[in-house]
Amino acid sequence: MELIWLIPAAGFAAVLFALWLAWDVLRRDAGTPEMQDVASMIFEGAMAFLRRQYSTIAILAVVTAIAIFLIVGGVSEGVKEIISDKGEIKYGDKVVSRWEEGLLTSIAFIVGAAASALSGYIGMYISVRSNSRTASAATRSLSEAITVSLRGGAVSGFLVVALSLLGVSGIFLVYSEILGNPESIAPFLIVGFGFGASFVALFAQLGGGIYTKAADVGADLVGKIEAGIPEDDPRNAAVVADLVGDNVGDCAGRGADLFESMSAENIGAMILGVVIYTVTGNLEWVVFPLVLRSFGILATMAGMTAVPFFARRQTGGDPMTPLNYGYYLVSLLSVAGLFVATKVMMGDAWYWFFFCGLIGIGTGIAFVYITQYYTSGAWRPVREIADASRTGPATNIITGTAVGLETTAATAITIGLALVGSFMLGSEAGIEGVPAFSSGVFGTAVATMGMLMSAAYILSMDTFGPITDNAGGITEMSGAPESARHITDSLDAVGNTTKALTKGYAVASAGLAAFLLFSAYLDKVKERLDIPLTEELPIDLSTVDVFVGGLMGVMLVFLFSSLAIRAVGTTAAKIIEEVRRQFREDPGIMAGTSRPDYGRAVDITARASLRAMVAPGLLAVGMPVAVGLIFRFARDAEVTVGGVTYPDSSGWLAVSGMLMIGTIGGIILATFFNNVGGAWDNAKKYIEAGMLQVPSGDPGKMETLGKGTDAHKAAVVGDTVGDPYKDTAGPSLHVLVKLLSTITLVLAPLFIS
Amino acid sequence: MELIWLIPAAGFAAVLFALWLAWDVLRRDAGTPEMQDVASMIFEGAMAFLRRQYSTIAILAVVTAIAIFLIVGGVSEGVKEIISDKGEIKYGDKVVSRWEEGLLTSIAFIVGAAASALSGYIGMYISVRSNSRTASAATRSLSEAITVSLRGGAVSGFLVVALSLLGVSGIFLVYSEILGNPESIAPFLIVGFGFGASFVALFAQLGGGIYTKAADVGADLVGKIEAGIPEDDPRNAAVVADLVGDNVGDCAGRGADLFESMSAENIGAMILGVVIYTVTGNLEWVVFPLVLRSFGILATMAGMTAVPFFARRQTGGDPMTPLNYGYYLVSLLSVAGLFVATKVMMGDAWYWFFFCGLIGIGTGIAFVYITQYYTSGAWRPVREIADASRTGPATNIITGTAVGLETTAATAITIGLALVGSFMLGSEAGIEGVPAFSSGVFGTAVATMGMLMSAAYILSMDTFGPITDNAGGITEMSGAPESARHITDSLDAVGNTTKALTKGYAVASAGLAAFLLFSAYLDKVKERLDIPLTEELPIDLSTVDVFVGGLMGVMLVFLFSSLAIRAVGTTAAKIIEEVRRQFREDPGIMAGTSRPDYGRAVDITARASLRAMVAPGLLAVGMPVAVGLIFRFARDAEVTVGGVTYPDSSGWLAVSGMLMIGTIGGIILATFFNNVGGAWDNAKKYIEAGMLQVPSGDPGKMETLGKGTDAHKAAVVGDTVGDPYKDTAGPSLHVLVKLLSTITLVLAPLFIS
Repeated sequence: MELIWLIPAAGFAAVLFALWLAWDVLRRDAGTPEMQDVASMIFEGAMAFLRRQYSTIAILAVVTAIAIFLIVGGVSEGVKEIISDKGEIKYGDKVVSRWEEGLLTSIAFIVGAAASALSGYIGMYISVRSNSRTASAATRSLSEAITVSLRGGAVSGFLVVALSLLGVSGIFLVYSEILGNPESIAPFLIVGFGFGASFVALFAQLGGGIYTKAADVGADLVGKIEAGIPEDDPRNAAVVADLVGDNVGDCAGRGADLFESMSAENIGAMILGVVIYTVTGNLEWVVFPLVLRSFGILATMAGMTAVPFFARRQTGGDPMTPLNYGYYLVSLLSVAGLFVATKVMMGDAWYWFFFCGLIGIGTGIAFVYITQYYTSGAWRPVREIADASRTGPATNIITGTAVGLETTAATAITIGLALVGSFMLGSEAGIEGVPAFSSGVFGTAVATMGMLMSAAYILSMDTFGPITDNAGGITEMSGAPESARHITDSLDAVGNTTKALTKGYAVASAGLAAFLLFSAYLDKVKERLDIPLTEELPIDLSTVDVFVGGLMGVMLVFLFSSLAIRAVGTTAAKIIEEVRRQFREDPGIMAGTSRPDYGRAVDITARASLRAMVAPGLLAVGMPVAVGLIFRFARDAEVTVGGVTYPDSSGWLAVSGMLMIGTIGGIILATFFNNVGGAWDNAKKYIEAGMLQVPSGDPGKMETLGKGTDAHKAAVVGDTVGDPYKDTAGPSLHVLVKLLSTITLVLAPLFIS
Repeated sequence: MELIWLIPAAGFAAVLFALWLAWDVLRRDAGTPEMQDVASMIFEGAMAFLRRQYSTIAILAVVTAIAIFLIVGGVSEGVKEIISDKGEIKYGDKVVSRWEEGLLTSIAFIVGAAASALSGYIGMYISVRSNSRTASAATRSLSEAITVSLRGGAVSGFLVVALSLLGVSGIFLVYSEILGNPESIAPFLIVGFGFGASFVALFAQLGGGIYTKAADVGADLVGKIEAGIPEDDPRNAAVVADLVGDNVGDCAGRGADLFESMSAENIGAMILGVVIYTVTGNLEWVVFPLVLRSFGILATMAGMTAVPFFARRQTGGDPMTPLNYGYYLVSLLSVAGLFVATKVMMGDAWYWFFFCGLIGIGTGIAFVYITQYYTSGAWRPVREIADASRTGPATNIITGTAVGLETTAATAITIGLALVGSFMLGSEAGIEGVPAFSSGVFGTAVATMGMLMSAAYILSMDTFGPITDNAGGITEMSGAPESARHITDSLDAVGNTTKALTKGYAVASAGLAAFLLFSAYLDKVKERLDIPLTEELPIDLSTVDVFVGGLMGVMLVFLFSSLAIRAVGTTAAKIIEEVRRQFREDPGIMAGTSRPDYGRAVDITARASLRAMVAPGLLAVGMPVAVGLIFRFARDAEVTVGGVTYPDSSGWLAVSGMLMIGTIGGIILATFFNNVGGAWDNAKKYIEAGMLQVPSGDPGKMETLGKGTDAHKAAVVGDTVGDPYKDTAGPSLHVLVKLLSTITLVLAPLFIS
């Protein structure tokens, strides 16, 4: 346990680093009074939304926490000690009563939910403070603007990662050492933390995603199309809501998404470590995921610090380049950390898991390339869509759909290779007494944790997006010089790429983690049925329970997306109505003599999007429970493990199918939504940049189809369609997939007769 | 075996009935010389395409047949007798050598492919002969036009069903009685028939689907949008290609689709019957599916004959009503047939399976309602899309997508209920010596066969669609009176509904059949591994092989759709180029003084769409083989059944995951494509009919947003986007799902070490 001190060290170092970054950003010049005026409207709108959103979520969370207490306390049978008896894993005395289990799970849920909410709140506080400072920096230089916006983003990135690490390790410490429970059962007791985190993430991402795109689509439709005024024009009452939306969707939403990814996957990996710990007696296997993440934080701090250095060495060129160099440095240092962690903690089996971790780090890098290929104007897919815009919006949409469907192939193949590769390496580890199956699944967990080592860096780049987007809007609305707008525009384009990258990263981590989270669920079922953790529990796809459960899982993914996309439409309609009303009732707005009531538009958007997030959220939480209960009581399939037959298994079997096959459907559909949206967005930008050239009537000469042409109008349609796909449905699906894992993990006893 | 005579009787009765219908249609007035002129151009174009398409398919089929012979002959181990020994099913002596098995499978493949091609050819021959006769009848009366078009469609419907019934029963007879093989192994030997049928169906549906939508989209874009001339205007060189497309896509394509559905599911059901036959000694269990389908044919003949009676009793109103009455009559008579068949053939267990069959018939009726609800202008979904068109094409697409995603819920729940219900009923049957699992799966097979009893009726209604669509085009192009155009327009609207119904029916049958086809595949694996058919073979979803196989399956479904949709775009571009060239080189075309070269446009469409169908077709055939082989050689998972461990099982496990989870993904995605396309189409029609009313400036009064408004233009964009979704990708996915079943069934030995 030589490396265990790293966990608090890295966690607190990350907090200090974030505080230093925050101090550095906040001490800078906050811009002209006009800039500060716009920024303060955004700040107030964002904070008011967040407060209201968190109040709604808090009510839902408290109800859920009580439900967890009653369900787990009521239907579970308590937790027994897990002991190793002559190489076999068995269950000993009951050490936690069922009501105690319910209480601990419920508390963990609340702690996880609170930590997630806190990290979203603080991160966003700094992010909406950074926008005007970035706008101000942009009046001076590009490199200063990059520094401010990236540091603002990094505050969020490091806080989220630190809170997840400290939260998981802290609650593990309390539940094991302080409450005196055996270390082997503590990971099972803290699963509520993961569920709490995904619960908040689901609503944060849904509410934020609906808000941001409804405001965006609404502002565009009523401003650009109806009133014929440009984007971010101060006469548009919805324009502040649009800028608020960037923060609550991309910043708070994605932060919560990655917080729960890291937490849930960390806890799942610890559960898988229990088998190896019980057999070998080395607690290292349980705390390994925490240590590996600590190394990741240190690597990311170094990489982040180096970015300004890379930026200074570069003269001109793409601002993306120094960010990419930083990411490569983080990856390289992560490999070193992985080497130390596996070598010190894993004994003779270390190199098998070292290579598993390498696969994870490599998968992260692969997704950077895949996402850029499919969503950047430099390659075939986006150009193809831009080209199809020449024949109108219909062909733009058709070609975009074809491209989006195509992108699922590279994603699925990469995830498939990473899963098979890390499973095979892990199963070769040959730890005495541990079945190849268990160490194989642990291999996929190490790959997942390896990939997540760079999470803070990715999240910083992601939050960079809304900050620069906001800075652009503030520059426009405050009448800052043209040169500043050029700088914020170039940063905004980079922000679009980094936002797309984060989504690819989130999908990949969901895919890699599917296996480990599923196995954690099965371990929970085994624990509940007194099946030794070393036995394989077959989930037979040829039974009607698993198959129909899977059918319901894929259907859930589609229906959930339907509700999320529809919510954007209904909320946007409310915004359009309000802006129209303001134009109608005060003609001075259009003339530029009176100022529109931005606050009212912000308020209406907030209320409508919070109402709209409830239905898809409840569907996501309710459907696994409903399917599990229906199958539990309607059917009575049997499962035979090691010669013992377990009757009445339909409930947890159907949930297994739903979880696993729903995850596959969710990953693929999210990939489609994210990438097609990004590609449509950049096809529009490609045309706006004057890159679409067609043969003109004059032979040998080319004509440019730029802004304002019919091709551009067609591309705008595609971009608008892509908005709810890529910023509402896609990101919410990542969270849904993980929520399926955590909810089934926590409520497993409910599905077992 | 009292009822066995019904099989040839019903088969030949159906052929005679089809001949009588054909004679009745062909003897009617073929219309004015102008009508006949247009009709003959369509006829030539359609037949030329079909000849060329079948030549391409024939080459691919011969290569595949040789490959099957070499693969099955090379890697199989021949077929052993299946015997019952004291209540246990065991394997006896080898009765078919491996090269013989390869040869028989390969011949069955060729016969299945040829029968599918033949039914497509004959059906389309009559269909393209019926269009001008319908146009001519429309100049006289609505009821005569309905009679002609429905009878024309019924020729195709009855021939397809009869050829499938006679084909499957004929080859079964030859392979068992004439070649002297035991009846218990003959179903395994004829699986090639199903694969041949799906092979032809895949290419027929892909080629036809690409052709029809490329011509449609191309003609619209270059005619309506660029040249500003109406739909079906004779000055548009692509207009005949568009009319040809209706036949080759909807008529030949869907015919092949249902031919292979019926054949493959019939053969799969016979394989499942083998277990019960071996235990009970009653061959009835194997031939039951054939008998049930015979009853279905008789019921359909009665129902079809009654439609003109229903039509005469109705004065005015929706022409859909008599068609619906006919369907209810068919369903009612099918219930009677089901009763007789189960009562006579199934001994004491009859009523369990009677209720299974009832579930199947009920599922068919449920899908009629679901499809109508989601794609007809009378309900909320289509109205919502029409309403969203007011704010432009982007909101039309967003709302349509939300509706389309939503439709998957009703579909999945209905299929799920039917599967669980029929499985539970079947597993209660309590046939001595037959495990509950086997009789449960047989229950889902009976439900599937029950549903397919009405296949001939559904297919007749489907082919009714392109005939009336063509009749409308002929009426327009031949300058027939306005009143005739009104009649063909009203029939065309009905045709759109019946086409949508057929797709829902095809999806539902694919979903219901998933289980039986998968079990047939597992029986084949068991037979190959000498595992008794009564043992359950677990396909463990928690193994990396099954999970990653499933991930690849869902990915295949998405990638295949991408290729199919993209193919429409590239083919449409070729057509647009050609029509532009003709307009440019001969100004007389636009002036109406010279006639465009329709033939060249037809020819170019045919060549381009046949080239475009190859890539998705080869992907569909190649990917299951590739995944199976890669896993077979890269991994070595073990499976334990009844205490015996089977090593090196990764190949067939991965294929299992791909098949089952790919089927789930395919059913859901096809539902989305079919329904969203239908809803967009009817939202456009809803606006064109003047049903979209909005409050006008004048308080209390409503304004109609009809043809030519911006809302209509937005709805046209949605309709165009939906074209390749609903007529290319969606229907091709049904076939893909079944092809996955038949290819894995035939090539199973390849994936087993």
